[in-house]
Amino acid sequence: MMNKKGLAILMRTKMRPLSPSSSKLNQMQGSQPEGDKGDASLLPQRELTQVRESMYSAMSTNKTEIVDVALNDFSQGYFFLSAENRYKILLSLAKEYDLNRTQVRELMEQHLDLQLPSDKAEDSGHEEEGSLSAFYRIERNLRQALKPMYEVLFERLNTHPGGLKFLSDIRADILCILEDVNIASLRALDSHLKEKLITWLSPANLELYNITWDDPASLLEKIVAYEAVHPISNLIDLKRRLGIGRRCFGYFHPAISGEPLIFIEVALMKDVAATIQEVLWDHPPISEHEASCAIFYSISSTQPGLSGVNLGKFLIKRVVDVVKKDMPNICVFATLSPIPGYRKWLLSKLASSEMSGSAFKENLLRPEEEKALMDASGGSDMGSSGIDIMWNLLTSKTHEWTNSPNLVSALRTPMMRLCARYLMKEKKRGKALDSVANFHLQNGAMIGRLNWMANRSQKGVTQSGGIMVNYIYRLDNIEDSAQAYLNEGHIESSSDFRSYIEDDNGERAD
Amino acid sequence: MMNKKGLAILMRTKMRPLSPSSSKLNQMQGSQPEGDKGDASLLPQRELTQVRESMYSAMSTNKTEIVDVALNDFSQGYFFLSAENRYKILLSLAKEYDLNRTQVRELMEQHLDLQLPSDKAEDSGHEEEGSLSAFYRIERNLRQALKPMYEVLFERLNTHPGGLKFLSDIRADILCILEDVNIASLRALDSHLKEKLITWLSPANLELYNITWDDPASLLEKIVAYEAVHPISNLIDLKRRLGIGRRCFGYFHPAISGEPLIFIEVALMKDVAATIQEVLWDHPPISEHEASCAIFYSISSTQPGLSGVNLGKFLIKRVVDVVKKDMPNICVFATLSPIPGYRKWLLSKLASSEMSGSAFKENLLRPEEEKALMDASGGSDMGSSGIDIMWNLLTSKTHEWTNSPNLVSALRTPMMRLCARYLMKEKKRGKALDSVANFHLQNGAMIGRLNWMANRSQKGVTQSGGIMVNYIYRLDNIEDSAQAYLNEGHIESSSDFRSYIEDDNGERAD
Repeated sequence: MMNKKGLAILMRTKMRPLSPSSSKLNQMQGSQPEGDKGDASLLPQRELTQVRESMYSAMSTNKTEIVDVALNDFSQGYFFLSAENRYKILLSLAKEYDLNRTQVRELMEQHLDLQLPSDKAEDSGHEEEGSLSAFYRIERNLRQALKPMYEVLFERLNTHPGGLKFLSDIRADILCILEDVNIASLRALDSHLKEKLITWLSPANLELYNITWDDPASLLEKIVAYEAVHPISNLIDLKRRLGIGRRCFGYFHPAISGEPLIFIEVALMKDVAATIQEVLWDHPPISEHEASCAIFYSISSTQPGLSGVNLGKFLIKRVVDVVKKDMPNICVFATLSPIPGYRKWLLSKLASSEMSGSAFKENLLRPEEEKALMDASGGSDMGSSGIDIMWNLLTSKTHEWTNSPNLVSALRTPMMRLCARYLMKEKKRGKALDSVANFHLQNGAMIGRLNWMANRSQKGVTQSGGIMVNYIYRLDNIEDSAQAYLNEGHIESSSDFRSYIEDDNGERAD
Repeated sequence: MMNKKGLAILMRTKMRPLSPSSSKLNQMQGSQPEGDKGDASLLPQRELTQVRESMYSAMSTNKTEIVDVALNDFSQGYFFLSAENRYKILLSLAKEYDLNRTQVRELMEQHLDLQLPSDKAEDSGHEEEGSLSAFYRIERNLRQALKPMYEVLFERLNTHPGGLKFLSDIRADILCILEDVNIASLRALDSHLKEKLITWLSPANLELYNITWDDPASLLEKIVAYEAVHPISNLIDLKRRLGIGRRCFGYFHPAISGEPLIFIEVALMKDVAATIQEVLWDHPPISEHEASCAIFYSISSTQPGLSGVNLGKFLIKRVVDVVKKDMPNICVFATLSPIPGYRKWLLSKLASSEMSGSAFKENLLRPEEEKALMDASGGSDMGSSGIDIMWNLLTSKTHEWTNSPNLVSALRTPMMRLCARYLMKEKKRGKALDSVANFHLQNGAMIGRLNWMANRSQKGVTQSGGIMVNYIYRLDNIEDSAQAYLNEGHIESSSDFRSYIEDDNGERAD
């Protein structure tokens, strides 16, 4: 059991959540120490020079002791830099420690000067071997020359205590910068760093750990701080998520101790959950041997710098394996997921439908939906058309429509139908537009069921009008589904779910 | 304590040692099953085809289930292949799954067609960014195109259960083949595989474990089987090596369970050991708090396929750290090492000295050494010159000279002097010719002391006339020594050791 000190820490955490990382630009700026030591106007420049020097010497020398000191100076100094100076130092890393293009081109020319061995070279085995060995030599040198010099820094940080975490923090800063400005050299730096991180954080190097109420408060505090989907409101809430009928699994890396890189929360239930209320609050948990469904209701990654490393895919696979092995009675694996991009997409549709000329106007609402909305609004000043009313209801900050049974009922049909269309049809580069949908579909899940009023919290209503969706992981189909999605953009869904879309098509074909 | 079953297993092991791997060519052949199932003459061909097909499908499909089955079939089938068929399949992997040179050259030409940005491009930031981004794109594609297709197989095996060990076994076979024939494509395959193994077996992924008498017999059995320097002769011998005043540390990888990749045996002593007898048998161990020296007296790697991965360097560093932390009274870290190449080198020197014409004849022996040898041989038929006598004594299978105090005494001076010369002056590509010397020198050790009659066993006398050497790890000098050796071939040594060489130089300058 947790001791008193642990509890105290945990309670304090609740009041004053950790800032999970220094990734956001404003946090980067916030981390700059105030000028209370000497000449504040000169300090940043001197600091920048020092940090830059330690970065260079960490790459350029071969003496371990000096490298270690330089890496320490660099990583400590970096955190004191302002956002602007971090930008400067990362840019100078990307540009000045790139590859040597002149050398690369010399090797290319050497390669192109060689005669490719002919296909019928089998007779002249010896000659072929000789010619091939020249190719191999140049190609080996070329591979080496194509490595930017800054890879040395990454590799040295990776084996330096705390270095892997620092690399992830650096990448968070880079991603943050790239959101604002598109700099080719910085983008190249990012893609190299990402590739390295993918190698170093391969599933073979990660440990799956079942986090429980018996774990140290210092770990549980992190769970509270990092939970990104359904915020943990108090100790009872946390204890319930770690108690009977619940599981919380984290993926840990030996070099980043005391916090998971990503964690998933699981509820063991009789049926696939239709609302987050029943998972988090409404029902007391059932005894575990009665459960037949494992519901993944929250998955949070803790390191913004690991974006794109896709730890979640492997985490889900391993959790499925562990749960299947521990509890053979569990036969359904499903999520209860938010639809974070739905309301934003819907508002843009409503806006463009209102603005576009009547000739190109898309019939976003069906006549009976239009009528139901007008009726429910009861001639108030909510709007002059169904679209108008929807817009006004969805943009009201207080979401008071959720308290009106009439409005909830009138919104249900168009909101669910358009949500199905959003999940199934709206794509970006062949992938589902919704980020959570894309995540589960590329992992091989199918879309199961839409759930109305499934998350009535401020956050749930703001993201998706309170709708949530179950993605189903059918164990014998995961790979096929993932391949069909990744190769052809094909989205598998239940017939229940498809009925929304088919109705929609029928209507529009009229 | 070990249970009875454990002891029984251990005793059996002693009688029937494991064959540590299937690496030796004769073992490769030995693993082919005898033709007791059908037409023996057709079987090998059919097997080869099947294994080859599973290898190809493990690379070419993307469906995890199929890949898993193919990897299983491939790795199981491979072990049943004859040496000749293994050779065939590895060669076809190296040649048919190499890179696509036509594609590589197209990318090279695209790159060479681009104009390199001028150095004064700082004014035209935007233009430069645009041009750079074309370079980055082509370079990224080129890096990809320069990866041989067989890397996919390596990567998939790495994350497949048992796959990492299998890759190490495959590499052992490749190294074995390359000892006999030099095939450029197979050499390239080997260098790719080696690089991958170096990445996957980085120190961050390895666990240091203190192996004790309380460990499972199945683990201790491996130590007995793999001990390569000083064979473990019986249970008492093993127990002593794991008992008071002794340590055995292994480096383990999570994917290769139950056996270390490499292990080191350490004796805690009052003084730097001068003979292996005192470490292994003569003296009872002292109480550990009296010890001031940690003597590394044996280091054995268990995987021939990890040759060149240099796990030993990191193992020694970590063991030094652990021992220093646990026992602050230990202040000397030294080895007691064999000199495996000395006798072979000396015999070749003796032979060429005998054969070469008198004009170019090197004075291998000094006059007083010559005289002492002639006197000690007492006019018997041992030879007509000092060199002749040395040759005959060192090539006698029974090593009876080790029982004659006169001969031992007469051999001592020239043997020690020439051994110092061998260790210090004989180089191959700028590195010490002796493999053990090269290993410790590149790790940053210095040569400490030569020890006469330090290993009287058959093996010790055959390798180096019974001489052993202490390499000293001086903790504040390790990196400097390693760099000086690696960069300039500089070998550090004690003044005691140097006196052999300086005398030698003095003599020759006369």
